[in-house]
Amino acid sequence: MVDLQAAGQRAIARCDALGVAPYSDSHTGLYRAWLTPAHRAAQDKVAQWMGQAGMATRIDAASNLVGRYQGNMPDAPALLIGSHLDSVRDAGRYDGPLGIMLGIECVAALQASGTRLPFAIEVIAFGDEEGSRFPASMFTSRAMAGTLSAEALDGIVDAAGVSVAEALRGWQLDPARIAEAARRPEQVIGYLEAHIEQGPVLEAEGLALGVVTGIAAQLRFEVTVTGRAGHAGTSPMPLRADALAAAAECVLAVEAIARADDSDLVATVGRLQVLPGATNVVPGQVPFSLDVRAGDDATRDAGAAQILGRFQAIAAARGVQVQAIQVQDLPASPCDVHFIALLEQAVAAQDIAPYRLVSGAGHDAMVMRALCPTAMLFVRCDGGISHNPAERAHAADAGVAVAAMLDFIERLGATRGT
Amino acid sequence: MVDLQAAGQRAIARCDALGVAPYSDSHTGLYRAWLTPAHRAAQDKVAQWMGQAGMATRIDAASNLVGRYQGNMPDAPALLIGSHLDSVRDAGRYDGPLGIMLGIECVAALQASGTRLPFAIEVIAFGDEEGSRFPASMFTSRAMAGTLSAEALDGIVDAAGVSVAEALRGWQLDPARIAEAARRPEQVIGYLEAHIEQGPVLEAEGLALGVVTGIAAQLRFEVTVTGRAGHAGTSPMPLRADALAAAAECVLAVEAIARADDSDLVATVGRLQVLPGATNVVPGQVPFSLDVRAGDDATRDAGAAQILGRFQAIAAARGVQVQAIQVQDLPASPCDVHFIALLEQAVAAQDIAPYRLVSGAGHDAMVMRALCPTAMLFVRCDGGISHNPAERAHAADAGVAVAAMLDFIERLGATRGT
Repeated sequence: MVDLQAAGQRAIARCDALGVAPYSDSHTGLYRAWLTPAHRAAQDKVAQWMGQAGMATRIDAASNLVGRYQGNMPDAPALLIGSHLDSVRDAGRYDGPLGIMLGIECVAALQASGTRLPFAIEVIAFGDEEGSRFPASMFTSRAMAGTLSAEALDGIVDAAGVSVAEALRGWQLDPARIAEAARRPEQVIGYLEAHIEQGPVLEAEGLALGVVTGIAAQLRFEVTVTGRAGHAGTSPMPLRADALAAAAECVLAVEAIARADDSDLVATVGRLQVLPGATNVVPGQVPFSLDVRAGDDATRDAGAAQILGRFQAIAAARGVQVQAIQVQDLPASPCDVHFIALLEQAVAAQDIAPYRLVSGAGHDAMVMRALCPTAMLFVRCDGGISHNPAERAHAADAGVAVAAMLDFIERLGATRGT
Repeated sequence: MVDLQAAGQRAIARCDALGVAPYSDSHTGLYRAWLTPAHRAAQDKVAQWMGQAGMATRIDAASNLVGRYQGNMPDAPALLIGSHLDSVRDAGRYDGPLGIMLGIECVAALQASGTRLPFAIEVIAFGDEEGSRFPASMFTSRAMAGTLSAEALDGIVDAAGVSVAEALRGWQLDPARIAEAARRPEQVIGYLEAHIEQGPVLEAEGLALGVVTGIAAQLRFEVTVTGRAGHAGTSPMPLRADALAAAAECVLAVEAIARADDSDLVATVGRLQVLPGATNVVPGQVPFSLDVRAGDDATRDAGAAQILGRFQAIAAARGVQVQAIQVQDLPASPCDVHFIALLEQAVAAQDIAPYRLVSGAGHDAMVMRALCPTAMLFVRCDGGISHNPAERAHAADAGVAVAAMLDFIERLGATRGT
């Protein structure tokens, strides 16, 4: 029998161990970006843990750490279990690493029981899910999924002016050959990612685990409200064209439309600037961001259209201008229906009511769908807090996640014969 | 007869002349701060114009330029006509200087006709109405009004670390003796200030001039809305405590309350920040400024109380916190009732319907009220634009302002016997 308690504790303890130098390049908090000394140190440590769990490790052409646990035939296709090793600045310790550590625990348990499956298992530690160093992200999973060309690296530089190509060369990797990290579909049977929820839903529902049905479709807009600046003391109320008051109506419209929709639509104004921004000046211009997400493209698009329509009505009523420019369009990335069903059975087998939820955040799984069927398991975290040192996940939940993942692996094995 | 057209053109042309180096310390726009080389150059030029208009000039203990045109007796008390020579950064050319130039034109006209009045006229060019160099303002009018002590200068330094005391010494002025600029009330019969409106009301009413009844009472607050930050993709709408949505309701409440009030109440949110301020993060905290003004203290206070009460109702309904700290309280500074009446007659004599308005912005007149009765004449400007290079006033309006000011002076003379 697997000691789930020990497995969960070890997974959490290892995330904690990776939260400080040399696995962080910041001494005041966790910051581990792609192709940095902290990334290298963390990769070396994780490779060591993979080796202890019975995996042969290698670094692929895109810098991903890959640990392989052979199946019952040497060239069997692999179930990939992964997540990312990089972090945002001032990060929490579980966003990314937990999924890798849970994969290692699964393999360690299989090795301990001498179990070989009709497929190999490869645990993947991706390099750059967050995009915290370069102004683009998921290069490493895109390379593995076969959707990245070497040309996509051109002109991408970090804040210090170092290009992705130079950073790769610094790791003895040839940027021209990054696409060689691509896996052949026939070698891969699927991708499973466990990740902290980064949201408050599972905690509110009293559930340790949740089954992700897909990664939300996302639209982003840059919106600018243009009114007329004026002196706060000398502009009578009826003669004003206050850009902030108009923007405030827009913000409330965004909230009201998303709230009124009984689907999983969410819409957020997260950035807003007031210009010129002085106590005694009526605002003349207010740029703000609009982020709209839903589990499916149609719900997202309908929500965004309603919001943008409402903006124009507000503009017309107030005699201001509202301009919205779409800056991002990520379609929904549904998980595999068969995998979802298997994962629900695996979660139910832990006496946890299977709870489906959409991932509002992006993950490597979103990218890997181009290569193979995907599944995602969410693990409860405290208060939905993430991207923050206060991020917390619990050993007991990690332990039950290992059990559910092992159960999923077993069921998957049964469907493929032994 | 006074050539009003020439007088108006000259007043505007002189403001324009002062808009560039050496009367500005910026070569990309107008910036003339207190006790700077630009201030010195402008003072020298204005003193020359005062001399041409028949005035004897001096610099007082607070750096004010004072030009005196004697009355029909050598020691007659004086009607002071003034405004300020300093500017904000990237300023317009008329905010301040126009009032000084119009005063000079009045004296030039009196001199041309050989008119001596039962009082002297002193044209004052104040040094620091804007507070654009030091983090406090109106030192020079406070010194003249007798409300400034030398101790008030202590610890006040500019961005370069130069103290007011050092700056005064650089002008061969003794900071310890700044209070000697104070005028004795019996030497002063009143203070008249002409100024561009810096608001859109006169233009909207189709009037060149307006009679100011007083300078508005003002309250300022720093308000902070505290909700709970969360991931924009993973926080369902019902579980959010969005600080920006709450602040948006507050902004609209400020607007609605000031609009609903049929007095001269105005209320403005001019500064607002969103924290942490990322596209994909539900805002956790939103600090903003609140500025409330009205012609009288009671209207202002009632408006502010209603607004703050509404903030608390919004906070309670949304489960967020709203904290408001009062950071400024300037009581109303009414103009003299007798002067207002004289100025209205003077304006009416120019075939302009007398139009009363409250000054929402602060002026040296607000300070001078501690010394003597005050009057203020507003001159129409384009679109209410001020503190901006696009600030515009017109020669024709300046000419009719000279006419109204001369008429006021004549009527004032009549009330005091010749």
